[in-house]
Amino acid sequence: MTNGKPAPVTVLGLGPMGRALAGAFLAAGHPTTVWNRTAARAAELAARGAATAPTAAAAAATSPLVIACVLDYAAIHEIVEPAAGALRGRTLVNLTADTPERARWTAGWAAEHGVGYLDGAIMTPVASIGGPGAVVLYSGPEKLYQAHRATLAAIGGTAAHLGADPGRAAAHDVALLDLFWTSMSGLVHAFALARAEGIAARELAPLAKGIGALLPPIIEEYAGHVDEGRHPGDDSTIGSAAAGIRHVIEAAAARGLDTGVLDAAAAVARRAIDAGHGTDGFSLLAETLTGPPAAPRPVPA
Amino acid sequence: MTNGKPAPVTVLGLGPMGRALAGAFLAAGHPTTVWNRTAARAAELAARGAATAPTAAAAAATSPLVIACVLDYAAIHEIVEPAAGALRGRTLVNLTADTPERARWTAGWAAEHGVGYLDGAIMTPVASIGGPGAVVLYSGPEKLYQAHRATLAAIGGTAAHLGADPGRAAAHDVALLDLFWTSMSGLVHAFALARAEGIAARELAPLAKGIGALLPPIIEEYAGHVDEGRHPGDDSTIGSAAAGIRHVIEAAAARGLDTGVLDAAAAVARRAIDAGHGTDGFSLLAETLTGPPAAPRPVPA
Repeated sequence: MTNGKPAPVTVLGLGPMGRALAGAFLAAGHPTTVWNRTAARAAELAARGAATAPTAAAAAATSPLVIACVLDYAAIHEIVEPAAGALRGRTLVNLTADTPERARWTAGWAAEHGVGYLDGAIMTPVASIGGPGAVVLYSGPEKLYQAHRATLAAIGGTAAHLGADPGRAAAHDVALLDLFWTSMSGLVHAFALARAEGIAARELAPLAKGIGALLPPIIEEYAGHVDEGRHPGDDSTIGSAAAGIRHVIEAAAARGLDTGVLDAAAAVARRAIDAGHGTDGFSLLAETLTGPPAAPRPVPA
Repeated sequence: MTNGKPAPVTVLGLGPMGRALAGAFLAAGHPTTVWNRTAARAAELAARGAATAPTAAAAAATSPLVIACVLDYAAIHEIVEPAAGALRGRTLVNLTADTPERARWTAGWAAEHGVGYLDGAIMTPVASIGGPGAVVLYSGPEKLYQAHRATLAAIGGTAAHLGADPGRAAAHDVALLDLFWTSMSGLVHAFALARAEGIAARELAPLAKGIGALLPPIIEEYAGHVDEGRHPGDDSTIGSAAAGIRHVIEAAAARGLDTGVLDAAAAVARRAIDAGHGTDGFSLLAETLTGPPAAPRPVPA
């Protein structure tokens, strides 16, 4: 879209997310070249006007901007290392989900090979791509992000550049996945416990949504506590949380359910209580989880 | 409110929730008698017009309806057992949070002593009591609920009678606490992981709220899957969830964070994958957690 003419773009990896990304670039009028290890996945995009290439290197050679979205960073390296020559002087935007450490490692590899590198994290489902609901976070050199943001805008929704540290987008990603998958684990366990008590999931669902609606103000409140390192127990204390968790564990155990997740949550609360924090607020557990152990631990030899 | 005249009510236990309940009955014009082990807690309510009594038995003797809300069922029994004579022929509504098993046990005790018994669960915070936001679930004999629902309406908001099984309100309660406390555990861990990566909690909070907004449609969808015993992996599979959880664990471990809750969640997913469910949907884990299907339970009369 810079200078009125959509820039060429290459998409490596055509899983559900890669196909959605390529489709969004095509829809926005970008000349789009696609490649996938299994070539058949490109057929539908080719029918919509995408160019195809026999190798990742050949695909990369067609565009200043190369987007990759595959299973994990091991898969990324299998694809980009043989294409290093073709990628030199271009920008690789890696939208594959993985850890901050591996994002930094891949950024290091790119720097060594003269490849511009932005790391990104897609925070919304495949169906959101190309529409107003998409949320994509980027990190890496600000200049690179500014050079390509007009093209990246085709992905839709909200884009944010979080800073130069290439691991920063992945760090946000893992923190949000942490909340998401832990909550999902609680949801399936709640359905399992309800079912064991003869309560249909559809009967519990409206009340479960009510629980979900309690979260946003708590997120807001806890964020302030965590940033300020003050954890007032006015509304509810770690001690009362531990009592609530214990009731759930007892009820689940009485029905023969797995209680591993709750046992682990109770153990964290117990550690805080043993350290004298029973009357502090639940948000203090962010420190219990992070902080150095109360007593120095022997370092394994 | 029946026959136009607010009926007398007794409230045993004046912790924050008990005081809120007594305040709501007073505000609705019910002659309200209160009792607490530590009498000083009654002073503010007495100033607002509540009668006080020297013992739980004396307080119970003033009203056909006796509400109790204390720490747990052990505390309930310490209070009601010495007052059994005074409670005979009256209705005890136990709003103390505990397990379904203990609710059934207390219902059994009440039946033996000729005490009408309803078990209830308050699903909303203290501040909601007496207002439109309160949600209270009841279970126990329908006739008793109907006899007192006009008085109980003073608690405000939404009341629901879930059936004759006295454990049913507590069963809903523990299932919802399961979702709530597991999600809260994920929230504090997400803040801890973000902080370890140099991300302020207030920076993460708006994105975390976005994750929360993903939950309601997922709750709806999973409820259908759980009730129907069909767990399509169209949108996301247990295998891809396990990969996401693994990334979070790796990132958290790299920063020295406790990973107990996530390890336990990963172990459940691993069990399902090992049983051949890697390409099924995440909602299938409700079955993995439950173990063998429960035998149909006889419904208590």
